[in-house]
Amino acid sequence: MYRIDWQPDENSPLPLYLQIKTYMKRKIENGEWPVGSRIPTQRQLAEALGVNRSTVVTALQELIADGLLEGDGRRGTKVVNNPWSLLTSLTPPDWNSYVQAGWHRPNLPTIQTINETEFQAGIIRLSTGEPSPSLYPQQLLGEVFGRLASRIHTLGYEEPRGLLPLREQLSHHLQALGIVASPASILIVSGALQALQLISLGLVKPGATMITESPSYLHSLHVFHSAGVRLTGLEMDSEGIRLRGLTELKPQPNRMLYTIPSFHNPTGIVMSERRRIELLRECERLQLPVIEDDVYRELWLDAPPPPPLKARDPSGLVLYLGSVSKTVGPGLRTGWIVGPEPVIRRLADLKMQTDYGSSSLSQWALTEWFERGFHEEHLNRVRTVLRQRRDDVLDMLQKHLSGLAVWNVPAGGFYIWLRIVPPVSMNALFARALQEGILFNPGTVYDSLGGPFIRLSYSFESTERLNFGLRKLAGLIRELSS
Amino acid sequence: MYRIDWQPDENSPLPLYLQIKTYMKRKIENGEWPVGSRIPTQRQLAEALGVNRSTVVTALQELIADGLLEGDGRRGTKVVNNPWSLLTSLTPPDWNSYVQAGWHRPNLPTIQTINETEFQAGIIRLSTGEPSPSLYPQQLLGEVFGRLASRIHTLGYEEPRGLLPLREQLSHHLQALGIVASPASILIVSGALQALQLISLGLVKPGATMITESPSYLHSLHVFHSAGVRLTGLEMDSEGIRLRGLTELKPQPNRMLYTIPSFHNPTGIVMSERRRIELLRECERLQLPVIEDDVYRELWLDAPPPPPLKARDPSGLVLYLGSVSKTVGPGLRTGWIVGPEPVIRRLADLKMQTDYGSSSLSQWALTEWFERGFHEEHLNRVRTVLRQRRDDVLDMLQKHLSGLAVWNVPAGGFYIWLRIVPPVSMNALFARALQEGILFNPGTVYDSLGGPFIRLSYSFESTERLNFGLRKLAGLIRELSS
Repeated sequence: MYRIDWQPDENSPLPLYLQIKTYMKRKIENGEWPVGSRIPTQRQLAEALGVNRSTVVTALQELIADGLLEGDGRRGTKVVNNPWSLLTSLTPPDWNSYVQAGWHRPNLPTIQTINETEFQAGIIRLSTGEPSPSLYPQQLLGEVFGRLASRIHTLGYEEPRGLLPLREQLSHHLQALGIVASPASILIVSGALQALQLISLGLVKPGATMITESPSYLHSLHVFHSAGVRLTGLEMDSEGIRLRGLTELKPQPNRMLYTIPSFHNPTGIVMSERRRIELLRECERLQLPVIEDDVYRELWLDAPPPPPLKARDPSGLVLYLGSVSKTVGPGLRTGWIVGPEPVIRRLADLKMQTDYGSSSLSQWALTEWFERGFHEEHLNRVRTVLRQRRDDVLDMLQKHLSGLAVWNVPAGGFYIWLRIVPPVSMNALFARALQEGILFNPGTVYDSLGGPFIRLSYSFESTERLNFGLRKLAGLIRELSS
Repeated sequence: MYRIDWQPDENSPLPLYLQIKTYMKRKIENGEWPVGSRIPTQRQLAEALGVNRSTVVTALQELIADGLLEGDGRRGTKVVNNPWSLLTSLTPPDWNSYVQAGWHRPNLPTIQTINETEFQAGIIRLSTGEPSPSLYPQQLLGEVFGRLASRIHTLGYEEPRGLLPLREQLSHHLQALGIVASPASILIVSGALQALQLISLGLVKPGATMITESPSYLHSLHVFHSAGVRLTGLEMDSEGIRLRGLTELKPQPNRMLYTIPSFHNPTGIVMSERRRIELLRECERLQLPVIEDDVYRELWLDAPPPPPLKARDPSGLVLYLGSVSKTVGPGLRTGWIVGPEPVIRRLADLKMQTDYGSSSLSQWALTEWFERGFHEEHLNRVRTVLRQRRDDVLDMLQKHLSGLAVWNVPAGGFYIWLRIVPPVSMNALFARALQEGILFNPGTVYDSLGGPFIRLSYSFESTERLNFGLRKLAGLIRELSS
């Protein structure tokens, strides 16, 4: 559903159509809707403004008569003039050509739809990869925020690698995972996604190859694609990424491997200890740098996963990515990269060129968070809640989707990887579900080959809403496959 | 001066050289100093560790004997092996080739030096473009931080365009500047630099032209360069950018104009009202989109500058950039772009691909800040203090640099643009000043043609330190020009 940041006033003496006409005319007049841009359809406008379609049509017809709009509302209505261009007979800038010019690709249309739809009221988000609002540590963060005033005495630019007290805390935190990293080899970033963005700008060139699991979170991003990097997927089994595709290779520059060994996104698979050791051995032989994305590690439910690859990295080939987005909350926008100092220096320089560092507020808040030991305290609670949620959702799946789908039992993280059994068009299912107010991430997002998969997340929605959504989903699968 | 994150323990029974050797060996062992990387010079290490050079030499000699290092310390020492490669006879990954592979250029060496040197204790920063720590609004921000706990109830990902309550506040704030912008046409970014980064990724393609003032802040960045965009500089006079270079042009796609009309960085010039109107007329004729960087606007000292270009933009060609970095503090990492909705939508999608949005903590803090009217209250204080600082520094210049330099009297912002009169090598002056603990931004950073300029900032250092630094600078100019 299209959203709009204004509503007509039903109590106004001005007729609704005139209010709407004035609103749109102002949008055009002040350049928010530039000449050449397409405006929402009649149906979208009527829905978003809560009026009859005929009211919208009247407003549009007047603007068409004024020479500002053109179109019949079915194929879409375009802005063709603004008061300025009518007055001066000059042509306004062609923003369309600029919007299409940039070399960085837009997100996949499905991802754009997901990003925009998530914020609609009432929508049930079956795939959202963030902790539920009910997991928000209100009390602990309240204490942290209460300390900010006495910790922060200036808000200048931070050092290129980020706030030193936070890097010291992280150095300590990483030690518990078996990773030896001094503060100089840690770079604070605005989440693990920014880490990948910086790597794409700084460490690869067009024609490079990025090897990764298939399916992979990486396929949902255009960050490497846009930098001219080719993604190569390796199959997975229950122990993680399969090495067959690696053993045939020879050392070669301009190639990296990206992996999520613990609670893989989207499949939930944990790479076994044996596979980790074998993978490292292959990568050492291939002199192949590894990006280890370990943002789900701490969300184990049954037992901690094997140590990170980075903890067994004597040749220094692993860049390690961590974050608090999946544990405390993505709104902090704080993650970290651990790696060799020359690499960290290069990425820190790029970070300075990209956004001049991450928010000091977030960095100070996390410093306090780790110093006071709140992280472990919070994780204990999160694990208990997530364990229950996982078990509940597995029960729901059993109840609603038996025979309609098969799935794995994840040992941690957020995700269950559902394979839909009856033959249904995943595009049709996505669209039908959206009509019913249910949003999910289809497998196509994680693997260009597609396949009838859904990434289900048990971490975000309430169990009531998850149950409602899954029952509904089952109905839609039946409907579309019959 | 090289900095290091560790110090030897003088009270330890272990000899210093052995502590240093062990420290370096661990750095090599755990991959922080990868094979192929150059380690700091003997002099840098001795200084940073606070020991005699001979102690460093002994440690290095042992590591060379162990086969880990190679070199004579004068041309530099390199890591040639680590314990793993000695043991396995395998070659570690060649990180050097990766560090040099990325298409995004590193910062100018001078800028890298400035970014890294700024955080050294004791250094006098004559050019730093941020508010002095003494201007930090401790009490007002204390109140804001105290309210965070009751305002924030979850820390999920925000909407692509950023937190709606903040965009609503900004929409209101912009109205006072004469800019009509609904929340849908505002994108929250992590500072104006990120705005430029997003524009470089999303709105221009290789071969595009960016027209700007000469000199310009833009020359100090590689953001457009790296995207294959050619910068063209237009001369300035006391009224701002000169239009002669524009009047000859014809409309053409893939070209934009970047300007800082109010308190230009680095010259401090304010574009006159007449010039603004003429510039807009030319840009309208050329269908030339304009990036108006207005981050210094609110720092007027004598009288408010003329209205923004964006306030007189009926054809919708201006993208307007604002920020609180220069008024409240860069550590908040919050700025905004105002523009046509299709452009904002494209940039918001890229923002999601780059870092998934800016810190919610910063966004909520600023929402509270604007809602409570703290911004105007704070600006009144800032203006009073900056006015005094500017006058003090003008007195100092008169006292110390008469005859050695000429300068403008800025009506706002942070900067005085000094032209050094006697013939001195600016590179030599920069290096000598750094030896004396004085850091400044040379004009070469803002204009590839160079010229004997220094960007002086009266906003950051205490007046005592500014006075000391300027007296010292005068001495160095005399020394180098004699």
